[in-house]
Amino acid sequence: MSLRIAVLGAGAVGRSVVDLAEEYGHTVTAVADSSTAAVDSTGLDPDVVLERKEREGVVGDLALDDALAADYDVLVEATPTTLGDAEPGFSHVQHALERDRHVVLANKGPVAERYDDLRALEVKSEGTVQFEAAVGGAIPVLSTIADFGGEHITAARGVLNGTANFILSRMAAEGLGYEHVLAEAQDLGVAEADPSFDVEGTDAALKFVILANVLNDGGYTLADAEVEGIKNIPGSALDLAAEDGRTVRLIGEATPDGIRVGPRLVPQNGTLAVSGTRNIVQLETEYAGNLNLSGRGAGGPETATAVLSDVSRLE
Amino acid sequence: MSLRIAVLGAGAVGRSVVDLAEEYGHTVTAVADSSTAAVDSTGLDPDVVLERKEREGVVGDLALDDALAADYDVLVEATPTTLGDAEPGFSHVQHALERDRHVVLANKGPVAERYDDLRALEVKSEGTVQFEAAVGGAIPVLSTIADFGGEHITAARGVLNGTANFILSRMAAEGLGYEHVLAEAQDLGVAEADPSFDVEGTDAALKFVILANVLNDGGYTLADAEVEGIKNIPGSALDLAAEDGRTVRLIGEATPDGIRVGPRLVPQNGTLAVSGTRNIVQLETEYAGNLNLSGRGAGGPETATAVLSDVSRLE
Repeated sequence: MSLRIAVLGAGAVGRSVVDLAEEYGHTVTAVADSSTAAVDSTGLDPDVVLERKEREGVVGDLALDDALAADYDVLVEATPTTLGDAEPGFSHVQHALERDRHVVLANKGPVAERYDDLRALEVKSEGTVQFEAAVGGAIPVLSTIADFGGEHITAARGVLNGTANFILSRMAAEGLGYEHVLAEAQDLGVAEADPSFDVEGTDAALKFVILANVLNDGGYTLADAEVEGIKNIPGSALDLAAEDGRTVRLIGEATPDGIRVGPRLVPQNGTLAVSGTRNIVQLETEYAGNLNLSGRGAGGPETATAVLSDVSRLE
Repeated sequence: MSLRIAVLGAGAVGRSVVDLAEEYGHTVTAVADSSTAAVDSTGLDPDVVLERKEREGVVGDLALDDALAADYDVLVEATPTTLGDAEPGFSHVQHALERDRHVVLANKGPVAERYDDLRALEVKSEGTVQFEAAVGGAIPVLSTIADFGGEHITAARGVLNGTANFILSRMAAEGLGYEHVLAEAQDLGVAEADPSFDVEGTDAALKFVILANVLNDGGYTLADAEVEGIKNIPGSALDLAAEDGRTVRLIGEATPDGIRVGPRLVPQNGTLAVSGTRNIVQLETEYAGNLNLSGRGAGGPETATAVLSDVSRLE
């Protein structure tokens, strides 16, 4: 069945959702960026919207409220992640659920910071909330948990930030210092101009908060996570680790003891020592040992496939 | 919802399903091994059945036909995999579908050798057919494909036989010959007394045939696979590979070019070079790069979790 999608957010993920929706059998009826919107209840032409965004920096002549009021079956919330009250993303989601529409989030804020509020809204709505894209990009972490049965998973750990992983991999492989590799990552577009969200561990922590919420049916926010970043790791620590067959990765975990993210020593060729921007999630199960899922944890088309799989699951 | 399960086959997988069913909220109403059966429409006591199997080698005083005729919602087909007509497993499945019951297979035979026949029976039945346990034990390969959308997956490759992988890992790590390591694997219970199914590549090939059927909506049997085993790999080949930073693994693939299983050179610390009895499946996607799923590909409780996840998905 073809669903009508309203996409909020025209960053890499939102644009890729617009670009790929038709391929997944769906129609985009509204798109909004931070200042403008385009709406067409019979379906927007993705090329027109994307070209205008590219050329003029806007998606259309309307405003966000017009996109929120548009005809759609599913709201895709792909605006930037914000902390605390998770606004304006949370209000967008609320608006859609109160209209009995489905919501698919790529935005981590509402699911990490206001999970319980979100579930309370969902209970009163005929719409449902999905957010595979918020954890691990293209890696189907949440659907695997659902398929496996969350009650049989005892812990989740792994690498869920590609920027930090890229920096640590390069520091270890090339013997370079943090500042040098960060600058290189910024040149390559792997790190943002302000990389603090990634290198301080916040982004990874939000994902493990979401995992803790999913595994425990809510109760967690970022304030519950113990978080340490990678900025203070000297190159010499990586050299010392290497002499011992180990390396350093920014490892997160959601266990019955809580949520923690920080630099950890791991075996150099071990499962968790993925290289470059790759992500990995290890699910510790009750009866079946560890399951490892790895792949591309970020990127526009990659994350859009997770969004569109969520959309297709609604049918 | 609690479902009533009839379990055919009392090997490691069947026994673990009986053992864990209650934990997953279900009731076992019938169990059959190759010569006997136990039936109780109000629910069998798993301990009684398993102790009798352990002590006397039989599960009860009835016959297989009694188990097939029992009250159940789901038939779990966990008898040994057979090739060609895939009997008697196929007839068990047919019997259940004709009674409009669901079927969950751990037995690879019917899904690899008679996939099209199976789907034809399913279409006429109110029951459905699931078989996550037939590919990669505890690793949720098929549910990941379903969640991701099989039409967006272009190829599957990887290691789907733990015995062959154990032998190749040990040969490479210890510099020992094939016969020596095989004998060791048999002592450890990792290889069977007759290991031909595993070391000749048949078991891995059946799993890639199943993957090809899932990805292409049928059309394949074992006869379509190009299969080569690991018996003729000299230790010297592994030494040569190691000098080049590579090693040998029994790699299978299901691609648009067909199904192939055979020893291949892979990077020593690469994604596909899992060690010991671990399995890995790499799904090549259209828009999201490669997804890698690894975990325990065999074992009673591990495979039973896949069976019971399939059962729970029926609710």
